[in-house]
Amino acid sequence: MRRIALTIAYDGTDYAGWQRQEEGLGIQQVLEETIECQFGEKVRVMGSGRTDAGVHAEGQIAAFDMEHPIPEENLKRALNSNLPEDIRIMKVQEVSPEFQPQFSAKRKTYVYRFFNGPVMLPQYRRTCHHVKRKLDREAMERCIKPLQGEHDFLAFRASKAESTTTVRTIFDISLQAKEEEYGTFYELKVCGNGFLYNMVRIIAGSVIEVGKGHIPENNLERALEEKERTLLGPTAPAWGLMLLSVEYDDAFGLR
Amino acid sequence: MRRIALTIAYDGTDYAGWQRQEEGLGIQQVLEETIECQFGEKVRVMGSGRTDAGVHAEGQIAAFDMEHPIPEENLKRALNSNLPEDIRIMKVQEVSPEFQPQFSAKRKTYVYRFFNGPVMLPQYRRTCHHVKRKLDREAMERCIKPLQGEHDFLAFRASKAESTTTVRTIFDISLQAKEEEYGTFYELKVCGNGFLYNMVRIIAGSVIEVGKGHIPENNLERALEEKERTLLGPTAPAWGLMLLSVEYDDAFGLR
Repeated sequence: MRRIALTIAYDGTDYAGWQRQEEGLGIQQVLEETIECQFGEKVRVMGSGRTDAGVHAEGQIAAFDMEHPIPEENLKRALNSNLPEDIRIMKVQEVSPEFQPQFSAKRKTYVYRFFNGPVMLPQYRRTCHHVKRKLDREAMERCIKPLQGEHDFLAFRASKAESTTTVRTIFDISLQAKEEEYGTFYELKVCGNGFLYNMVRIIAGSVIEVGKGHIPENNLERALEEKERTLLGPTAPAWGLMLLSVEYDDAFGLR
Repeated sequence: MRRIALTIAYDGTDYAGWQRQEEGLGIQQVLEETIECQFGEKVRVMGSGRTDAGVHAEGQIAAFDMEHPIPEENLKRALNSNLPEDIRIMKVQEVSPEFQPQFSAKRKTYVYRFFNGPVMLPQYRRTCHHVKRKLDREAMERCIKPLQGEHDFLAFRASKAESTTTVRTIFDISLQAKEEEYGTFYELKVCGNGFLYNMVRIIAGSVIEVGKGHIPENNLERALEEKERTLLGPTAPAWGLMLLSVEYDDAFGLR
């Protein structure tokens, strides 16, 4: 039996998220059915973590076990010719049998994209949240700084979350702004050792509320100390979020 | 009666092109019906030119006449709240009554986007043509140079075209390449005083054939002299093409 790791990109617009669902189609399910249909092996594809309905990925990592000896490059080509166009296998790698996409992950990087201007180009609408009200860029840049480091992010999780510990480390958080003809295009990038349920979208929603002047810019810092969800902004919409990459120890054999 | 100029952006994926069609929905028709429905005036929206089914725009220009005195900004907002999300009005400007989007146009700029690599990120699939076979960047850069200037582009038009003169001027043509993780992202930008039917897509298709080594790199120059369509590559697919901008004399009052 071989353990195969996949690097997967998807446009999440038309899916019910990563995980196999009762209602709606999960990306995991599409992969499992495609592999089963092509190789006649019933597989369980384990992802590095769930992404919600509408969330995108450029570097989701998943793994499954198969008997079939097909070489890596041929497997990649075979899967891509049978998967829908909005799901692409970017890499296929045989890895150590100990590799577990979720539990072995060391770092994950997400980006949240939003556009600030009265009208947004339609090309952005699937992957970028549109904010019409003028945003204060400097205030947004300042408010994210205290999040860097190890903190208890209890205030930054959705109520239905069930993690036992809410302590996480953010290695890096930054806000890039690009001036365009019709407004400003923002990318909020967050790299951490793991994220609570909805954590990145709650950070993004809070940064935008600071930008609008709806909440004071020190509310993010205060929410870390006071563990109080109500200090923060709403969960920003799913379609602005993209899982960029997941990193592992070299020992597992991922390149 | 006021003449109103619109700067329009659209994702052409789900439309049958700019023009009102017997079958399928044209963008022109969507605009006309939206204006009529909101202001009770039956209007004819004239575009700067047709775009084919699947072709996109960031700066299509169109104009129509209306009686209603609604201010420009309010008209923009009203139209955007009633148009589908894949069509956006970026600007509304009252212009001189002599303004005709097609006949007054001085310069048009198109961009053709293509990606070269074994697998393309799904985020590109609506606006970018995917070329798997390795392309020769330098050969592609060289082959476009002779197209600059005034030439008879007879060889570069679709057979069903009906223009009387086939002489056009290309002011500028350039190929930008950006190295990315999974391949090279190309933008072929062409600015001219006007284009024959399918001309930009035939240029793009020929540049790609040169890149693949399927046709000699001087075939584009030879096609200008010999007026021979068969020297060139196929018409590149519609979804890679985007109308970036249309420029006019200052006298018409467009900013």
